Amino acid sequence: MTKYAIGVDFGTESGRAVLVDVTDGREVATAVYPYSHGVIDEKLPIPGEEIRLEPDWALQEPQDYIRTFQNTIPEVLKESQVKPEDVIGIGIDFTACTMLPVKRDGTPLCDLPEFRRQPHAWVKLWKHHAAQPEADKINETARRMGQKWLDRYGGKISSEWFFSKVLQILDEAPEIYAAADRLLEAADWVVWQLTGVETRNSCTAGYKAIWSKREGFPDKSYFKALDPRLENVVDQKMSRDIRPIGDRAGGLTELAAQWTGLKAGTAVAIANVDAHVAVPASTVTGPGRMVMIMGTSICHMVLGDEEHVVPGMCGYVEDGIIPGFFGYEAGQSCVGDHFAWFVENCVPAAYEGEARKRKIDIHQLLEEKTARLKPGESGLLALDWWNGNRSVLVDVDLTGLLLGATLATNAEEIYRALIEATAYGTRVIVDTFQQNGVPIRELVACGGLPEKNKLLMQIYADVTGREIKVTASKQTPALGSAMFGAVAAGKAAGGYDSIYDAAQTMAHLKAETFKPIHENQKVYEKLFAEYLRLHDYFGRGENNVMKTLKKIKAEVLTGKD
Amino acid sequence: MTKYAIGVDFGTESGRAVLVDVTDGREVATAVYPYSHGVIDEKLPIPGEEIRLEPDWALQEPQDYIRTFQNTIPEVLKESQVKPEDVIGIGIDFTACTMLPVKRDGTPLCDLPEFRRQPHAWVKLWKHHAAQPEADKINETARRMGQKWLDRYGGKISSEWFFSKVLQILDEAPEIYAAADRLLEAADWVVWQLTGVETRNSCTAGYKAIWSKREGFPDKSYFKALDPRLENVVDQKMSRDIRPIGDRAGGLTELAAQWTGLKAGTAVAIANVDAHVAVPASTVTGPGRMVMIMGTSICHMVLGDEEHVVPGMCGYVEDGIIPGFFGYEAGQSCVGDHFAWFVENCVPAAYEGEARKRKIDIHQLLEEKTARLKPGESGLLALDWWNGNRSVLVDVDLTGLLLGATLATNAEEIYRALIEATAYGTRVIVDTFQQNGVPIRELVACGGLPEKNKLLMQIYADVTGREIKVTASKQTPALGSAMFGAVAAGKAAGGYDSIYDAAQTMAHLKAETFKPIHENQKVYEKLFAEYLRLHDYFGRGENNVMKTLKKIKAEVLTGKD
Repeated sequence: MTKYAIGVDFGTESGRAVLVDVTDGREVATAVYPYSHGVIDEKLPIPGEEIRLEPDWALQEPQDYIRTFQNTIPEVLKESQVKPEDVIGIGIDFTACTMLPVKRDGTPLCDLPEFRRQPHAWVKLWKHHAAQPEADKINETARRMGQKWLDRYGGKISSEWFFSKVLQILDEAPEIYAAADRLLEAADWVVWQLTGVETRNSCTAGYKAIWSKREGFPDKSYFKALDPRLENVVDQKMSRDIRPIGDRAGGLTELAAQWTGLKAGTAVAIANVDAHVAVPASTVTGPGRMVMIMGTSICHMVLGDEEHVVPGMCGYVEDGIIPGFFGYEAGQSCVGDHFAWFVENCVPAAYEGEARKRKIDIHQLLEEKTARLKPGESGLLALDWWNGNRSVLVDVDLTGLLLGATLATNAEEIYRALIEATAYGTRVIVDTFQQNGVPIRELVACGGLPEKNKLLMQIYADVTGREIKVTASKQTPALGSAMFGAVAAGKAAGGYDSIYDAAQTMAHLKAETFKPIHENQKVYEKLFAEYLRLHDYFGRGENNVMKTLKKIKAEVLTGKD
Repeated sequence: MTKYAIGVDFGTESGRAVLVDVTDGREVATAVYPYSHGVIDEKLPIPGEEIRLEPDWALQEPQDYIRTFQNTIPEVLKESQVKPEDVIGIGIDFTACTMLPVKRDGTPLCDLPEFRRQPHAWVKLWKHHAAQPEADKINETARRMGQKWLDRYGGKISSEWFFSKVLQILDEAPEIYAAADRLLEAADWVVWQLTGVETRNSCTAGYKAIWSKREGFPDKSYFKALDPRLENVVDQKMSRDIRPIGDRAGGLTELAAQWTGLKAGTAVAIANVDAHVAVPASTVTGPGRMVMIMGTSICHMVLGDEEHVVPGMCGYVEDGIIPGFFGYEAGQSCVGDHFAWFVENCVPAAYEGEARKRKIDIHQLLEEKTARLKPGESGLLALDWWNGNRSVLVDVDLTGLLLGATLATNAEEIYRALIEATAYGTRVIVDTFQQNGVPIRELVACGGLPEKNKLLMQIYADVTGREIKVTASKQTPALGSAMFGAVAAGKAAGGYDSIYDAAQTMAHLKAETFKPIHENQKVYEKLFAEYLRLHDYFGRGENNVMKTLKKIKAEVLTGKD
């Protein structure tokens, strides 16, 4: 009898369930639930009340996650006609760090009437960016105290991460901090809701909450220095029992079985993160092959046998992606977003007209025109920092640059320059890993962009000088979660004993790959040298004009100087 | 009896005559003649023949200038009902260097059947840019020989100028060079056609043909070093009799009287150049007040009592603008052109739609949106080098730069950054003059832009920290030429004895001026410091990436590397 696993991928705007054949990874049915409250960034969704949020806030409603289970899993069962007893396991992946304060029994504080009007009681989404002062304090304190763990995160903790958000709650809503029995990732919270068991996964703990397998969390003295009230945060509100990914968290409760239509007791995997779970789903279970999850931004994930400090990466965690390896993560904060910005703000009316007339998408028209240009032909060069630089400069205050424009410059040339700039950004990341002892032989791409833009993929191959393979699945994170579900079930139940075994049969690549074209590579070598010089000049402090302009802007807008 | 003068302004696409009341400068009638052949830059306009031009060529047909007289002067007479005997003088101004080869009797070589198929026999328009190799040779030879006159031109002779064009004729069509009895500016040629007398004006000789009142032309040994055949070019094909502007060239011939409907013998002024003749028409007849002729590009003209070498200017000529002063000229090659490029290539469809709906011009919509932004608010900074840099870097190979873009950047912010960049470019020119002994107290603007864009004018005032006045006339060059026509006629005939006297009564400013706003100035001081640092970094050799990109582009397009 064929067995199945379900992966549930919690994205920014919606949750998605995929029901997968455990024998070959075939995706049998898919269902998507758009969160009823989406991203909450203007005011709390309380009828008749006007509780507005400050700039840079981004919240979610935890019941939207429960509704995702309630809506999508019954739907994939119905669509596939698979019997509940043939579904052997569930895995979930989530955006991170997406975190919330809850009571001891798992009740989110925002579900309690006394806290519902307090924004800090709600889920803070990964892109809640209002905790920068707290992140600054975390970094300054760590540097002052010589905290070695800072090296594991490229020398900087992000405002998006766990303790930045915790500290913001403590700073701005100490009553919420006090009322929270537990502070945890939404990823772990949904697994708790499915199984009735509170667990903490090694992936978010490692990448977002300064935990490591060998050294645990930072010392109490550090937390005390940060804020005396935080001294015992780990023991009081978190857990030191961090479970490796691939483990079984527990079995479905009766209540969760009612929500989903699955059998009570069905195996549920330890929680995981979208980008990280995509790695084995991209066939990567060992060193040398970097996975690029390419969408609005790019996450770069690579495994290493050894521990290396690579400057400017987002972090590395032992067993953080695949047990037995150091999982290294880097990122570019603006890729698909960049092209979307360009199309919205810079494409002349004539192009829109042409696309309309030919009944094609404007991106497609631009790709067509852009593909006719040779590398170097436009004379343009850009720095891909429209949304700051995540790796390897780790600096949100850097901004975009376009150089080389003339009166003959046209839209497709600028568009190509922006694509090339993001490729150079990836090349800097690849080279930095390589130069610091983490070899990268080949690239494996997944996500939305490889489907949509083949020219972009070819440019990445030419610029990085590496072959790029593409995953067969269009929903890699959900497939990866299903794979972890099959591992949580185990071989005896028709699943697998390890993620390696699961990847062998369930993960696939497309036949089509992108190989570097020698002639293009030669030109891009020259252009990349110029990129790198500008990258270092503007990015490493020689000319801080980008920060100065931001400072002037802030002064002008606030009326201070 | 009221007396009148006529100014004829020969532009790039058309010629314009304005009939002016000599007593107060009132413009009584205007007529425009669009040249029948316009700018010839693809193929010679010979019916049934396909003689194509190489890239960067730009020619004109000399009979178009004669047709300008034949069409426009009768029209202004008719429109104004002024009697021919009440028109006391004519002045003309021309683009420069716009030059042609002619026979001893003034017949253009391109009007002779044996030369009509040879592009080098036609008029080379100012923007004929194909003589760069010749300009390079002129500059290298001058540097090698330590020619002091190079300093008068900011260290560089342009490919647009007289001897670059002459040398190109000699290099590529020695038979045309040999057949030409005279090589001269079209400005001087049209005066010759009106008066029957060949004269040479001090303005084009000084600014375009390396002549100075004190030192004359470069030495024969220099021309010989350039090319042995050029040794006697001045004596054989030009003239050493250079006439000061403001002089009377002669009287209208019977033939020219027939063309125009004026009386034979009517005074004709020595030829002049459009930008230069605009200076007295802008009320400027002494030091301290810079005239900006603002259109597709900006010409900056200022008078000085003393001789100063100012780095990176276009040139300075004693008596070149107003007798008795050193006339200094600088320029920005891309201003109005820049905004036109932006509107054509970078304005999103939604904006075009809004402008259409509100039935306003897209430039007007952009100005409206842009005016709502405060200085510094966009966080953007640009280098205004979309068409190279004329002053003070004198480098056509520099290209445009935009810095500070984020995902929130919109079209009006970019538009404002481009306007600001051109203002910073003017500020560099103003500061350079000031620092080198040519004081600039106030700016006087004329041309198309001040009419069209008040926001731009305010930004220029804020950035330069100087009050900007605007000329009352919308056709300043033609008015200036009419003023010189009145001076050629002289006081006895109802005109003036000097251009100072003419300017006193005939030139006017608008009541409205643009005064620097202190608050804006403070922000622009900070932004200008950042501009200047980028200007020097990319413009003075520290990082030659712009040239490198152009080199790579050329290699890619020619297949060489």
